[in-house]
Parts: sequence; C-alpha cells; structure tokens
Amino acid sequence: MARVVVDVMPKQEILDPQGQAVANALPRLGFDGITEVRQGKRFELEVADDVDDATLANIAETLLANPVIEDFEVRRVEA
Amino acid sequence: MARVVVDVMPKQEILDPQGQAVANALPRLGFDGITEVRQGKRFELEVADDVDDATLANIAETLLANPVIEDFEVRRVEA
Repeated sequence: MARVVVDVMPKQEILDPQGQAVANALPRLGFDGITEVRQGKRFELEVADDVDDATLANIAETLLANPVIEDFEVRRVEA
Repeated sequence: MARVVVDVMPKQEILDPQGQAVANALPRLGFDGITEVRQGKRFELEVADDVDDATLANIAETLLANPVIEDFEVRRVEA
C-alpha cells in the first residue's frame, strides 16, 4: 500500500470567495500581516502498489479536481 | 513575505462523507485499487515576515480548522 496526497487549488486567475472570506475575517479577529489566503482541497488516498502514476493523474483530473478552474498536484508520501 | 501552507484533515475517527463518496465513485468509473479516500482542506497564506509560528497556529486553530473534528498542520514553504 502507498499513501498518495492530491492537492487541489483554485487557479491563480480564478476568484476564490472562500479564501477571500478568511482573508477578510483575519483583521477583524486581530490577526494582521496576512496578505492573501487561497483555499483548496487536500485528498489523502490509500493506494495499492500496482496503481501507477498515470492512473493517479487520471483520477485527480477526472474526479478530484476540475482542471478548468483548478490546478492539482499528485505526490506519493511516506505512510 | 513568506508562504505558509495549512493542511486540515478530518480526524481518523470522524466519518468523512465527502471522501467516502469519492471512494465509492472510483470503482464505478473503472479505477480499482484505491482502498481509502479522505478529503480535507488546504490553505495557502501569504504572510508578513514578522508573523510568528504561534500566531499562525492560533489562526489555524481558530479560523481554518475545527480542532474538535479536524487535525491541522502548519508549515512554511518556499515561495
């Protein structure tokens, strides 16, 4: 078994209302010095050893991310 | 400026219906060998250099994660 992490973030040119809401809330709560917040998704997958990188990229592209508005990164991590 | 990543994941003992939905969809779409999927959140923050780690942990704990049901990890990354 391998552990795989897929990070999905809104593309830089796409508005990110969730991140914007967090960024706006921070000064109200007394936290200064945070100039930008982007919010995305993180998936952790437990994957059989015979699943190759092309399959993982395919899964990320079709099911985990929307490539029109989101960038994603797939990486294997230590369990 | 520094870039900070905050990963927020549901605790292991907490049900994760979003991740479960993805895990159930995978075999239907022809992807086998994925035994578990957990879905969480990833935040990317642009932070002034004078913001210390304690402040970042405080922000993660109060605004980005719900520590009752979620674990979080704060780390500084290369810009």
